[in-house]
Amino acid sequence: MSLPFPIPPFALECKLFAKDAFGASFTHPFVLALAEGTLDPKVFRFYQIQDAKYLEAFSDACAILSTKVIDPDDKLWLIDAARMALVVESQLHLGYGKTLGYDASTIAQTEPTPNNLAYQNHMITTAMKGTILEGFCAIAPCPWLYVELGQHLVQKKGTIPKDHPYASWLTMYSDPGFNDYMANLLSRLQKYADLTDLDAKNRAKLTFRQSCDYEWMFWEQAWTSQVWPHR
Amino acid sequence: MSLPFPIPPFALECKLFAKDAFGASFTHPFVLALAEGTLDPKVFRFYQIQDAKYLEAFSDACAILSTKVIDPDDKLWLIDAARMALVVESQLHLGYGKTLGYDASTIAQTEPTPNNLAYQNHMITTAMKGTILEGFCAIAPCPWLYVELGQHLVQKKGTIPKDHPYASWLTMYSDPGFNDYMANLLSRLQKYADLTDLDAKNRAKLTFRQSCDYEWMFWEQAWTSQVWPHR
Amino acid sequence: MSLPFPIPPFALECKLFAKDAFGASFTHPFVLALAEGTLDPKVFRFYQIQDAKYLEAFSDACAILSTKVIDPDDKLWLIDAARMALVVESQLHLGYGKTLGYDASTIAQTEPTPNNLAYQNHMITTAMKGTILEGFCAIAPCPWLYVELGQHLVQKKGTIPKDHPYASWLTMYSDPGFNDYMANLLSRLQKYADLTDLDAKNRAKLTFRQSCDYEWMFWEQAWTSQVWPHR
Amino acid sequence: MSLPFPIPPFALECKLFAKDAFGASFTHPFVLALAEGTLDPKVFRFYQIQDAKYLEAFSDACAILSTKVIDPDDKLWLIDAARMALVVESQLHLGYGKTLGYDASTIAQTEPTPNNLAYQNHMITTAMKGTILEGFCAIAPCPWLYVELGQHLVQKKGTIPKDHPYASWLTMYSDPGFNDYMANLLSRLQKYADLTDLDAKNRAKLTFRQSCDYEWMFWEQAWTSQVWPHR
Repeated sequence: MSLPFPIPPFALECKLFAKDAFGASFTHPFVLALAEGTLDPKVFRFYQIQDAKYLEAFSDACAILSTKVIDPDDKLWLIDAARMALVVESQLHLGYGKTLGYDASTIAQTEPTPNNLAYQNHMITTAMKGTILEGFCAIAPCPWLYVELGQHLVQKKGTIPKDHPYASWLTMYSDPGFNDYMANLLSRLQKYADLTDLDAKNRAKLTFRQSCDYEWMFWEQAWTSQVWPHR
Repeated sequence: MSLPFPIPPFALECKLFAKDAFGASFTHPFVLALAEGTLDPKVFRFYQIQDAKYLEAFSDACAILSTKVIDPDDKLWLIDAARMALVVESQLHLGYGKTLGYDASTIAQTEPTPNNLAYQNHMITTAMKGTILEGFCAIAPCPWLYVELGQHLVQKKGTIPKDHPYASWLTMYSDPGFNDYMANLLSRLQKYADLTDLDAKNRAKLTFRQSCDYEWMFWEQAWTSQVWPHR
Repeated sequence: MSLPFPIPPFALECKLFAKDAFGASFTHPFVLALAEGTLDPKVFRFYQIQDAKYLEAFSDACAILSTKVIDPDDKLWLIDAARMALVVESQLHLGYGKTLGYDASTIAQTEPTPNNLAYQNHMITTAMKGTILEGFCAIAPCPWLYVELGQHLVQKKGTIPKDHPYASWLTMYSDPGFNDYMANLLSRLQKYADLTDLDAKNRAKLTFRQSCDYEWMFWEQAWTSQVWPHR
Repeated sequence: MSLPFPIPPFALECKLFAKDAFGASFTHPFVLALAEGTLDPKVFRFYQIQDAKYLEAFSDACAILSTKVIDPDDKLWLIDAARMALVVESQLHLGYGKTLGYDASTIAQTEPTPNNLAYQNHMITTAMKGTILEGFCAIAPCPWLYVELGQHLVQKKGTIPKDHPYASWLTMYSDPGFNDYMANLLSRLQKYADLTDLDAKNRAKLTFRQSCDYEWMFWEQAWTSQVWPHR
């Protein structure tokens, strides 16, 4: 599939380095069932509630990173990314919340699963402790994977039937509106890679790969209704 | 003057505690000259460039604070506040930049004055190290003072002549659109004060008063074209 | 077993809340084999290398928390706790490193396992975003469990034979010198609990329980030589 | 004066860039009077109380920076630097506190002066938001200046009479024990400068110079018993 946004060299390097982890999501049973429309609504509900919590942490990571960049354009882009995580995607939750039976209070009272909490804290800690490049590399796999996955699934399926139970989800992430977002994000990876020494670049690639693994582990926690070991 | 937004008890307590520091801005020569329209455009330009830098730090403080609040509404409010500092007010700068001769690159190349840097770092450090209440108390005086000042000056002057050189500034900060913002901000001060022990509340009031002093010191740095001691 | 350090009410509340997660470590096969001396040295080596990385994150969490406390005694206690994580325990690693074949460079080049990274980032993120109480609750289970476990194992075994392969480990954590540390740590939990509202106390208990689960998951990652899902 | 610790190129570049600000302290009336022994004990008491508060912030900056470095040696060095700020120098305060009449409670109840708070927050904010190099550049001028100043004053005076009222101060900062500390600190500046792009290096030099100005402003706040503008 040719993607409608440019992938600068360092982003490509990250993706190749994390090839297996990035690619694994495309065949995760959760994803396949979601695309087919056969996914148990209870499992999707579990996923959505965890996802809402995740997006708050995504916002946190963007917010912290926004304090570190010097360029006001980068600062605003990151604040906008934080805002989008909280606002735009929460609209998706609003819709599914009504049909699947959950709301802000359900989300607030749900403990994140181990895989979810691990991913959240990975992004936040990296944004705080790491270089700017590492911060961007921690958050990039989430939108990148969702956009590629959304476009891949829609392309594979052709048109999405209106009665597909997860039409809103598929439509949202295959929205070409995300292409600009991705172009902006990946060009910033390049910009900061160009300013970063080799060791720190290698750490950033490791961080990127960990986030790719966490993406797969996120499907996994939803698919298995993951619980903490001793509860 | 009766203000068109409610002032809950803790906000009132802060304001009374910081009465002298809060009030001092109303009679600072910079403010009087700004209102009269007699302010030297070079001094206003100096002020605007420093203000643009300040607003980036205001955004940073809001961004850090947004990571600490649990309530998603508070998180979004703070991200929006960060965004407004970067976007809405930067539009003011865009206009004045054209007539007074400065742009993003001028701003980027200007070192903050001592008073400005002190205020910036006060907000950011408090947001990071302090309680949520202290964080809100560090950022509250800026919008509160500007809104009160804007409305006070416009009320005092009656209508602002179209040829008033600082009409945009006066119009912006007397905009009743800020009243909602203020109501939301001050109600959050109350919400977090209700959750905070007495010592931490007292530290928060001290923080609030320091920010009020910094507001006055901000006019002062512009009025005196403040420089670092040894340059 | 009666413990030689006092457990103030809030610490007790935490421990009861996390009873299952705290207790689970006592019967984890890794722990049983460690006590018996039958643990595969390769597995112990894996554990030690991951532990060395963990202790750096423990130091980070203490360091961040040290910036938030106002009381200089608490600040120094936390800096000392950070220091102890880096120094005292690294001496243990120095000894085992020689016999098991690893050194600082091995540690630096090893990626943390998923369970380890999750625990590390949990402590650091909590220290940064949470209240002071939450920060203390994130770090408390590690020393508390090790001290109880060390004293429990030594008490169960009577004397540790000199040729026990993990004698240094067992001796270290059963050292009564840790009792003062624990008394100091748990009294701080109480001090900050007394200053904290109920919701935040409940969040702190949840954080404590998550760290107890992470302790068990830490034995588990060593026992299973945990790898990232796609490598 | 030939200094007994090496000054690597980047540290030298910083010092030359900040020459005026660094040098200004040597002739500040507070410093001259301190060396002569003619400094009003009330002014010295004011200075010491403010200094005690400052050192807590110095510890905070080192603590934050310690979480960002990857190399465990650097991490430990920074934790030790935090500890030294809290412990070793607090012993100086213990002695002077007895003769000049202040203790931990006096320090806790004193508000930092504007210049002091500005300096504190400069170090902390830089440690949090900036690169590692900027963090080191924010904290370096304090020990560097004190060591040079201490050695300069003692060299100038020859031996310090036992009845010199500020003998402990002069003895402490002329202690050759600090030379190792300085060698370690400045070599880390170089190490991180070598990993840093040019723009960030220039920002770090600016940060260094600001800290040098803040050093002078610290003498100034003590000399003038600085107060906040509206109290």
